[in-house]
Amino acid sequence: MRNSTRGDVDPFIVMDVMEAARTAEEAGRHIIHMEVGQPGTPAPAVARDALAHAMQDQPLGYTVALGLPALRARIARLYGEWYGVDLDPARVVVTPGSSGAFILAFTTLFDAGDRVGIGAPGYPSYRQILKALDLSPVMIETAVENRFQPVPGDLAGLDLAGLMVASPANPSGTMLGRAEMAALMDAAADQGAAFISDEIYHGIEYEAKAVSALEINDACYVINSFSKYFSMTGWRIGWMVVPPDHVRRVERLAQNLFICPSHASQIAALAAMDGGDELRDNMAVYTKNRQLMLDGLPKAGFDRIAPPDGAFYVYADVSHMTDDSRAFCAEILDQAGVAVTPGLDFDAARGAGTIRFSYARATADITEGLARLERFMRQTGRL
Amino acid sequence: MRNSTRGDVDPFIVMDVMEAARTAEEAGRHIIHMEVGQPGTPAPAVARDALAHAMQDQPLGYTVALGLPALRARIARLYGEWYGVDLDPARVVVTPGSSGAFILAFTTLFDAGDRVGIGAPGYPSYRQILKALDLSPVMIETAVENRFQPVPGDLAGLDLAGLMVASPANPSGTMLGRAEMAALMDAAADQGAAFISDEIYHGIEYEAKAVSALEINDACYVINSFSKYFSMTGWRIGWMVVPPDHVRRVERLAQNLFICPSHASQIAALAAMDGGDELRDNMAVYTKNRQLMLDGLPKAGFDRIAPPDGAFYVYADVSHMTDDSRAFCAEILDQAGVAVTPGLDFDAARGAGTIRFSYARATADITEGLARLERFMRQTGRL
Repeated sequence: MRNSTRGDVDPFIVMDVMEAARTAEEAGRHIIHMEVGQPGTPAPAVARDALAHAMQDQPLGYTVALGLPALRARIARLYGEWYGVDLDPARVVVTPGSSGAFILAFTTLFDAGDRVGIGAPGYPSYRQILKALDLSPVMIETAVENRFQPVPGDLAGLDLAGLMVASPANPSGTMLGRAEMAALMDAAADQGAAFISDEIYHGIEYEAKAVSALEINDACYVINSFSKYFSMTGWRIGWMVVPPDHVRRVERLAQNLFICPSHASQIAALAAMDGGDELRDNMAVYTKNRQLMLDGLPKAGFDRIAPPDGAFYVYADVSHMTDDSRAFCAEILDQAGVAVTPGLDFDAARGAGTIRFSYARATADITEGLARLERFMRQTGRL
Repeated sequence: MRNSTRGDVDPFIVMDVMEAARTAEEAGRHIIHMEVGQPGTPAPAVARDALAHAMQDQPLGYTVALGLPALRARIARLYGEWYGVDLDPARVVVTPGSSGAFILAFTTLFDAGDRVGIGAPGYPSYRQILKALDLSPVMIETAVENRFQPVPGDLAGLDLAGLMVASPANPSGTMLGRAEMAALMDAAADQGAAFISDEIYHGIEYEAKAVSALEINDACYVINSFSKYFSMTGWRIGWMVVPPDHVRRVERLAQNLFICPSHASQIAALAAMDGGDELRDNMAVYTKNRQLMLDGLPKAGFDRIAPPDGAFYVYADVSHMTDDSRAFCAEILDQAGVAVTPGLDFDAARGAGTIRFSYARATADITEGLARLERFMRQTGRL
């Protein structure tokens, strides 16, 4: 049977790591998971309780495509609480995860062949989704001195139809300040490019609050999710804020592409937004883990790192130790029993010299993982 | 801000009906819902119980992209139970509803501009999703004498990259027999077109079992869902069966486009497959409702109908009464208090002379709806 060209996307290298880790565990080994991009915690108890009750009372059929009105209103209120932004709930689109939001945003904004700029290193699915939708991902190789974020000068001559940024970013954890974000929005507007801000790690930030593009200008798409701060990855529920005059177009596409996001997940998400203490407890764990990483990684010989502003990753330059991060990660898994992600998924050009550590799991795992890494580095003569 | 061309999809006319019905209800009127395409029943109790338990024990994070292995195995077993087909679970892809399956199938199989044949009348989102993915929907105007299903002769000269059929079909409820399905698969293969069979209404069938394309040939994509027979519309969980050599491509696309289907919905779906009695009770209601419709609609003056083989719709020719089904449906809603769907969503060319009645809801509603329709038709001098 026939195949498409656009369906010919790259494999996720991290999947090989995860499969190797699973095989090792099946063989009886104990593995520390520093490769995963998700919390180990469940959805807040209030979220699960709300759904348990709703399942008794309601048929949970389709909702309207843009999502439950109460959830849209609550999300709008979050913009007041987090950023002091007064947001009309009519602009909030509930989506099947940020993944669904990307599909909706890209199909609403771009036609086949359009060029969309994204930073490298960056979340690998950006370029794969763009490609699957017959768009052209334009990789912007970001500089260490710009903390792995694009700057206006990077856009010159790119002829972009769109620019997507992520702050805090995956894998680097770096954020765009207000001035930097504003400058990028202006530069994108100057070449007629739509501006999309992926804010999925908002709420998980350490020394300063993350800036939303909505604090600066309404002429943008903002994408967020309940996956990370609200600890609901597997529920596949997120949202998008769009300019007022785009709502109807997005709605029609959402009706056809998704019908609606999971009703059950919407109910859980609405309650999760008032998960207060539990969410703060999760943040306390990330904060503690981050400090352990910033202390422990250099001691283990991974000293070319920058403190992350947000998210739960540390991106390390290991190019002085290897030019094959994939083999290096396989060696770490095999000998240290720690699963980590080679940078190749995030940056095809430079990722052979980088790796990503996640500290999303329990503190005890982080402590043990760092100890194993240090022992491994000593035993292999790298330290 | 910029807009895409492909995002310029048609509105759902049924949404206007639903909005008008909602407004009428808010104003205190009682409306009978014969416009909705979903059961009024919740997910089976065993499904809700399974999720309630899982929420206590498990974090419900991401699953692997193709879905929980136990669910894939159980779906494969269903093909043995329903069709006597021995299916390798490795070929089963769990998806975010059949909507997600369409997106996956179309991006795996087709490139921008490719022509994909679909029957008219048909589910309106087929053509809108195709358009949103920069594909060209080719409407095949089906004939009443072919029971609104395409036949091989219809494909001549269409130069299709793909053909999608639905059996039982929405809105007509008609099915393709084994010979008819086989002939269409051959005709599609003859022009190098991929064959996609939408089997979302399987299980809801009355006088004969629906035929799966997998009974005939493995060289096809089969799409199904937990929405209809398993009464789980709002859970957004479905599946797709693909040829063995397509699994890896579909998996990579699914990893990037969706990460995974809702973990909670997967757990509920797995349990729903053993929802036995409750599912049979639902079917008994549909069977009773169908007979009420086949008796009651002609009495109310809607006598140009055919008994549906499956699903829960009756598609009526009203072209002798109106050339504006939209206005006619508005009049029925306003004067009879019954919401029904104008055919325009399903068939842009001929739908001005057709309407779709759904009998998915409780039997008491169907009885009352039919009485109201008959009264309305008498009062307006049409009977």
